Amino acid sequence: MKNEDKHLIIIGGVAAGMKAAAKARRESPAMKITVLTDEEYISYAGCGMPYFIGDIIKDSKKLIIREPAYFKNMHNIDVLIRHQVTAIDTQSRQIKVNDLEKGQELRFSYDKLIIATGAQPIVPPLPGISLGNVFTLRTIANAVKIKTLVYSGNVKNAVIVGGGLIGLEVAENLVLRGIKVTVVELLDQILSPLDKDMSLLVQKHLIEKGVEVIISDGVKSFEGNENNIVTRVITGKRQLPADMVILSIGIKPNTKLAQDAGIEIGTTRAIKVNERMETNIPGIYAVGDCAETTHLVTRKPAWIAMGSTAAKMGRVAAINATSGVDAFKGILGTMIVKIFDLNVGKVGLSEREAVKEGYKTESTIVPASDKAHYYPNAKDIIIKLIADITTRKLLGAEMVGEGMVDKRIDIIATALTFGATVDQISKLDLAYAPPYAMAMDAVIVAANVLNNKILGKTTGILPQKVVEKFDRKEDFVLLDVRSELEYNSGHIKGCKHIPLDKLTSRISELDSSKEIITYCRAGLRAAHAYRILKNAGFKNVKYMDGSILAWLQELEK
Amino acid sequence: MKNEDKHLIIIGGVAAGMKAAAKARRESPAMKITVLTDEEYISYAGCGMPYFIGDIIKDSKKLIIREPAYFKNMHNIDVLIRHQVTAIDTQSRQIKVNDLEKGQELRFSYDKLIIATGAQPIVPPLPGISLGNVFTLRTIANAVKIKTLVYSGNVKNAVIVGGGLIGLEVAENLVLRGIKVTVVELLDQILSPLDKDMSLLVQKHLIEKGVEVIISDGVKSFEGNENNIVTRVITGKRQLPADMVILSIGIKPNTKLAQDAGIEIGTTRAIKVNERMETNIPGIYAVGDCAETTHLVTRKPAWIAMGSTAAKMGRVAAINATSGVDAFKGILGTMIVKIFDLNVGKVGLSEREAVKEGYKTESTIVPASDKAHYYPNAKDIIIKLIADITTRKLLGAEMVGEGMVDKRIDIIATALTFGATVDQISKLDLAYAPPYAMAMDAVIVAANVLNNKILGKTTGILPQKVVEKFDRKEDFVLLDVRSELEYNSGHIKGCKHIPLDKLTSRISELDSSKEIITYCRAGLRAAHAYRILKNAGFKNVKYMDGSILAWLQELEK
Repeated sequence: MKNEDKHLIIIGGVAAGMKAAAKARRESPAMKITVLTDEEYISYAGCGMPYFIGDIIKDSKKLIIREPAYFKNMHNIDVLIRHQVTAIDTQSRQIKVNDLEKGQELRFSYDKLIIATGAQPIVPPLPGISLGNVFTLRTIANAVKIKTLVYSGNVKNAVIVGGGLIGLEVAENLVLRGIKVTVVELLDQILSPLDKDMSLLVQKHLIEKGVEVIISDGVKSFEGNENNIVTRVITGKRQLPADMVILSIGIKPNTKLAQDAGIEIGTTRAIKVNERMETNIPGIYAVGDCAETTHLVTRKPAWIAMGSTAAKMGRVAAINATSGVDAFKGILGTMIVKIFDLNVGKVGLSEREAVKEGYKTESTIVPASDKAHYYPNAKDIIIKLIADITTRKLLGAEMVGEGMVDKRIDIIATALTFGATVDQISKLDLAYAPPYAMAMDAVIVAANVLNNKILGKTTGILPQKVVEKFDRKEDFVLLDVRSELEYNSGHIKGCKHIPLDKLTSRISELDSSKEIITYCRAGLRAAHAYRILKNAGFKNVKYMDGSILAWLQELEK
Repeated sequence: MKNEDKHLIIIGGVAAGMKAAAKARRESPAMKITVLTDEEYISYAGCGMPYFIGDIIKDSKKLIIREPAYFKNMHNIDVLIRHQVTAIDTQSRQIKVNDLEKGQELRFSYDKLIIATGAQPIVPPLPGISLGNVFTLRTIANAVKIKTLVYSGNVKNAVIVGGGLIGLEVAENLVLRGIKVTVVELLDQILSPLDKDMSLLVQKHLIEKGVEVIISDGVKSFEGNENNIVTRVITGKRQLPADMVILSIGIKPNTKLAQDAGIEIGTTRAIKVNERMETNIPGIYAVGDCAETTHLVTRKPAWIAMGSTAAKMGRVAAINATSGVDAFKGILGTMIVKIFDLNVGKVGLSEREAVKEGYKTESTIVPASDKAHYYPNAKDIIIKLIADITTRKLLGAEMVGEGMVDKRIDIIATALTFGATVDQISKLDLAYAPPYAMAMDAVIVAANVLNNKILGKTTGILPQKVVEKFDRKEDFVLLDVRSELEYNSGHIKGCKHIPLDKLTSRISELDSSKEIITYCRAGLRAAHAYRILKNAGFKNVKYMDGSILAWLQELEK
């Protein structure tokens, strides 16, 4: 059978599915291609929905990139909306389809099948979960409902259940509409992909922007009024008024159809595929949010649903399902999110994840400027880098700041793809001019700091560990080496203050038998003070990673 | 001899020299460290000077990062300004120094020597070159003089000799002060590191911003008034009024001191060093703008002076000159420059350079959005990628656009460091959210387009080649597939117009025996049209790389 006589069926019409369809057509001019979806809309930008709600994107049509007629006219691709695939018969190579409009059952034969069934929001079976104005945010329909409600002016209080990416993006967009927003997170931190120290920087910012952030508390039930509209959220510890609830606890891959057909499910509960995106059944591929892949750092199966991954997977499956050969080797869990004035990103493993994977890690937190210090509008980024001490390879990075985080995340993503060592990152020939970076870019500075720690040239201590030392009432000196002015405008409670330029002359004030931990604003002076003390024969000296910029507790004045 | 008894002398007090000094001190607490410079200022940010002139940076003090007293007090480093090193005696390990203030000759013994003598502007011996208000821009003193003159209000016309990075940065800053600026470039394009097609995009923008750009014309002499102040620039073809002239023809490394001492000079005319930054004389290192390094793509000697490289070299030399071991493996010629609303970047080889190096190249020009299309303020970037057809490795990239170019340059810089193939770049797990990128980032889209060309799946043609076809009056069809509205608002002279959605029904209007070249606005529809024609059996079809966005000639209405 020639390719032009074959039939490629794609189940699912959003990112991965439509990308696969379009790419398959480019690869194969004559193959019959059919896309089936139980939804009403195809090819929409789920990631844009929070911004649609916040009216940064005005029109819901802007979120719909293409309509079925476009695919028919332009690509000769049949897109059947409101057609639910109910079964795959891998023996006869047929699918059973329910036409949701006409209520008919149909059958289609396929030669190649691409499963792009996506994922769905987790909706816990809590009392009151079906009340009015309790939403998930995954479909255009719900996005429009939420926006309409927000613009009705009837929402004073909104509760967001789950402190993940989407939840926090929505939080921002609701606050911008003047709504009081409470985020309730069951875990002991928001943004669980991040380490807690970095997550707390985000949490602090949310609170400053007026969002109430509740951690370590779970929703138990929802209460409504006589019209069955939600009015209250009952958590383990609290009762929260709520005119609207957004559930963003997480998502799960839609795998039932595949599983029922005998297609293998991976350890991550998503559909298992090889590099060609092929399942255990020859000729059947899985792509997008329903498909598993490999983590390029751990080399283990991973499922981290992202629109960017979906698009790449769709392309690879399309090439393999037509006449070519292509491979998708995996992901790094790269993420970026705008939360009010902050850019928050992560790539590779967090320190917690790395330790759990058995790596012996070293890490650092380094604040650095995103542009030349003297260039107007230069902003700070706080960079955490995590490395494997044994191989000196970088394992991951987390970044939080008003500065350009996305650029540095992408630099690290590229470096991680090629297994870069910390030293290699510190030597990268990155683009330099004052409006774009410091002469040594922020990631290079951070890599140098981490390299010094790995090589034993310096000893740092994370702020969180300093807090624990205070809590344990340990006998140590926290040394603030900033100027008088900076010290008076706010310092860490219990510190000793000696400005850096006085440190040599006043060094006798310090007891060299004690542990001394230095800090300043962003780390440079703390590192100098560390060096001065070491050179003066102090044995037990550390600097506090990230200094004041990474310090989360209240400052004393 | 223990390290603490040794004397490290550093010649040069700007980026590389002071970085080396500070790092050496961190590596070696007790070593004696002396920095000698014939200049008055040290540790200044040369790259910030154009912005100081434009008053984006208000105070010249902001450009001076550190003063000598700081290094003495904080690091116990002696910095001797206005001390000119006149000779190095590598046998006795001594240097001869002229104290420019006292007029004394001094001698210093060194154990290790780091040469960081930098580079100097090329000043051609033209008649009138010494006239008043003819400046180079390399020192703080000149920057202050230029700014004072600009603010005097007496400069109506400025001529910038040389269309390189610094020249164009200054051009922008002078235009912003209301001065009529003419750039005179001897070569047939400005920004010579770029390929001509990309350079012309910048030239077009400069002209739109009111800069007069003269190419292929050289300055012959300068004429002045009775006070010996410049009034006119005489070129091979023109006479240009000028109240001020900025010479930015280029720079040359300061190597005389090294050369006189028998230190080997490389093929690039900069000081030859190994990965440890050591010259042919043991114990003598060279760093920064006077030092040669290796190009990480060609693996050949390279000299591309950059502040970012200087800082890294200084660090590496300091480690090797004290007690450690470190290596600087080379550069990629990465550059970024802001020119009015454009961000312009390059990394690796241009296509012209790659061809000259003997690579068999494929390239593409792809316009893409820097954010999700539907996100407000998304801006275009025009990306040129150049690859080696044989290995499918990327060789270089050039980017021009109002969007975030620096991020994509740094992604490619990192990828080039690790010898990435075009395919590997197309699979990078880059950070995606609507405010930061498209689901498939601009560099991924460009890599996919290039990959298709390399694999022979598509055939593109660069706009410049289309111009040449018109010039040669070749018989071909340039097919505009944009909408009626877009076509009417401006199209390429001599094109045929069939909107994409009519292409199938009107395909008989096209002669399938002729060469057909498709274009649209940014390339997507041109690629679709290409595919439709191929599928319809047209044999000789191409799409025009970059479409209208990369088209430089006037459009017809």
